[in-house]
Amino acid sequence: MTDRYAADALIAYTEALFAAAGLDADKAAVVAPVMVEADLMGHTTHGLQLAPPYLAALADGSMKGTGQPAILTDRGPVVSWDGRRLSGVWLTATAVDLAVERARLYGTGTVSIRRSHHIACLAAFLQRATRHGMMVTLTCSDPSTASVAPFGGTRAVYTPDPIAVGIPTGGDPILVDISASITTNGLTGRLHKEGRKLDHQWVIDAEGNPSTDPAVLFTDPPGTILPVGGVDHGHKGYGLALIVEALTQGLAGHGRADPAEGWGAGVLVQVYDPTAFAGVDAFTRQTDWLADACRTNPPAPGVETVRLPGDGALARKRAALKDGVALYPGIVDGLKAWADKLGVTPPSAL
Amino acid sequence: MTDRYAADALIAYTEALFAAAGLDADKAAVVAPVMVEADLMGHTTHGLQLAPPYLAALADGSMKGTGQPAILTDRGPVVSWDGRRLSGVWLTATAVDLAVERARLYGTGTVSIRRSHHIACLAAFLQRATRHGMMVTLTCSDPSTASVAPFGGTRAVYTPDPIAVGIPTGGDPILVDISASITTNGLTGRLHKEGRKLDHQWVIDAEGNPSTDPAVLFTDPPGTILPVGGVDHGHKGYGLALIVEALTQGLAGHGRADPAEGWGAGVLVQVYDPTAFAGVDAFTRQTDWLADACRTNPPAPGVETVRLPGDGALARKRAALKDGVALYPGIVDGLKAWADKLGVTPPSAL
Repeated sequence: MTDRYAADALIAYTEALFAAAGLDADKAAVVAPVMVEADLMGHTTHGLQLAPPYLAALADGSMKGTGQPAILTDRGPVVSWDGRRLSGVWLTATAVDLAVERARLYGTGTVSIRRSHHIACLAAFLQRATRHGMMVTLTCSDPSTASVAPFGGTRAVYTPDPIAVGIPTGGDPILVDISASITTNGLTGRLHKEGRKLDHQWVIDAEGNPSTDPAVLFTDPPGTILPVGGVDHGHKGYGLALIVEALTQGLAGHGRADPAEGWGAGVLVQVYDPTAFAGVDAFTRQTDWLADACRTNPPAPGVETVRLPGDGALARKRAALKDGVALYPGIVDGLKAWADKLGVTPPSAL
Repeated sequence: MTDRYAADALIAYTEALFAAAGLDADKAAVVAPVMVEADLMGHTTHGLQLAPPYLAALADGSMKGTGQPAILTDRGPVVSWDGRRLSGVWLTATAVDLAVERARLYGTGTVSIRRSHHIACLAAFLQRATRHGMMVTLTCSDPSTASVAPFGGTRAVYTPDPIAVGIPTGGDPILVDISASITTNGLTGRLHKEGRKLDHQWVIDAEGNPSTDPAVLFTDPPGTILPVGGVDHGHKGYGLALIVEALTQGLAGHGRADPAEGWGAGVLVQVYDPTAFAGVDAFTRQTDWLADACRTNPPAPGVETVRLPGDGALARKRAALKDGVALYPGIVDGLKAWADKLGVTPPSAL
């Protein structure tokens, strides 16, 4: 049976690793719980699996561990930062908290970040806003890399371009975390490494032929991941990606038009305070109705029950907090190598 | 050959029809060019095809033709209206103009509208913002009706839930107009009427079986339109729809949780002024790069050239302004019946 770890112990371990690697102590204290949160939610490609490459980035200086973002503009409801390649998880968590403050003052709060390092799991930031009764939209793109072609094309132009949205209800929040491409770099990379295939034709080879084999992404020239909608109606995912690119690189004023700076992100955080619109009760009355209409929906053949986005993740989180976290194969060993190097003691399994 | 009409003559005709039907003159002057704009762009299900039902709604009082929206809140960057079931096209055009003003002052401008009448073609509003160098997001849903089930379910909970986004570039704007469902009520209705099938399995019957036949939407109980991603990865379109429902009905504080009031919309308009972020030049430098990388992308087999959303619509618009507009079959006759009734003289064909 796979070893399980207490969430608190993993957070303390992660915090110690990042602090030992040169991340400011206050930043390590913010980053560690967000990274473990992803594993608690079951987003295993975007939690502690990313700690080793982040620690390596701190070591080689491509992620900055100290200092503050440069403030490009501050108009009250809108704040624009140059992230100076600081930890993306820290920048994003700080930006969500700031956007919540600004939304409380102005009704909406928008924080744009250029030149962030990679921001890990978008879903893991959402409850920082929803627990205050606020709706939050978080989106990012990585201008230094590309794996998705525009619909009808064959050369990668942009990234999977995720959008995550936290929607308060009277009960658990709805936590949407989707991307503008059918699948992600993380998943296709993992399946390719494991010699496995995709469930459907979610990628095309370099000539544009649909395929289930992630290996087509690793040829020269490489194939590409299809936009949401696939060969059938992929213009929709293509449109969504263009929106994300404009929100995250256009507003940030930095992106693919500039020289690549390595693994990173342009980020946009938007927070909406329902009290500035029609009120919190009026908001949750609608979202409660919606949540109930979805959960009680008669399921299609082969479907056990209709769920809301976030239901599975929050159930996994509750179970993991109670019974401990079983990390995806390889993660424990990856962390151990860094613990040895940095002189940090790993936690014991439960 | 199909008759063609001068755009100006169609606008004057539409304005005269709406004014004669009881829409305030200043409102008719706003509504007419937006409705014709949809036909110029080739969005033939959402332009003048909607004029007869709108005129009927004015006649039976379900669309209000006179007065102003009630201001629920005005926080500067955020304005929240009760649309009082006024013309949705007028409300939305006015809201976009107001959001542009507010964005100029505050960096972003957000206008929420509850209880609007139907708002027609979202793409037709976007250049009201992009021509000022601003990015705009427009989304809506109709709480009085439902045709899409949550992914895995079989009973309709929400509408196709469109999102339209205008993105300024140094040249033509990128005009994205997508929905969270694969296809729309307008298109499935038209194909059903014409006895035609869908290109792919874009709908499911009431038991949840995928189908290409729009007739499954007209059984009792009815089938539903699949979310974007279809049977394969429809959880993405489902997530997108939940975002739209929360933005348009949650923030508006009015929607499906309330008694249905007939054909209408909850609307959210968001405008972003790049000058409050990293500047207009920095914005368009990124979007110009993006547009170029898409347009010059080597096409997949069977694709002539990769286009940007809006390229086709703007080309159709230029051609229609030069050579006249050929209205979709049935539209001319539909308008003629109202012209006779209201004593308005139709324009001559070119």
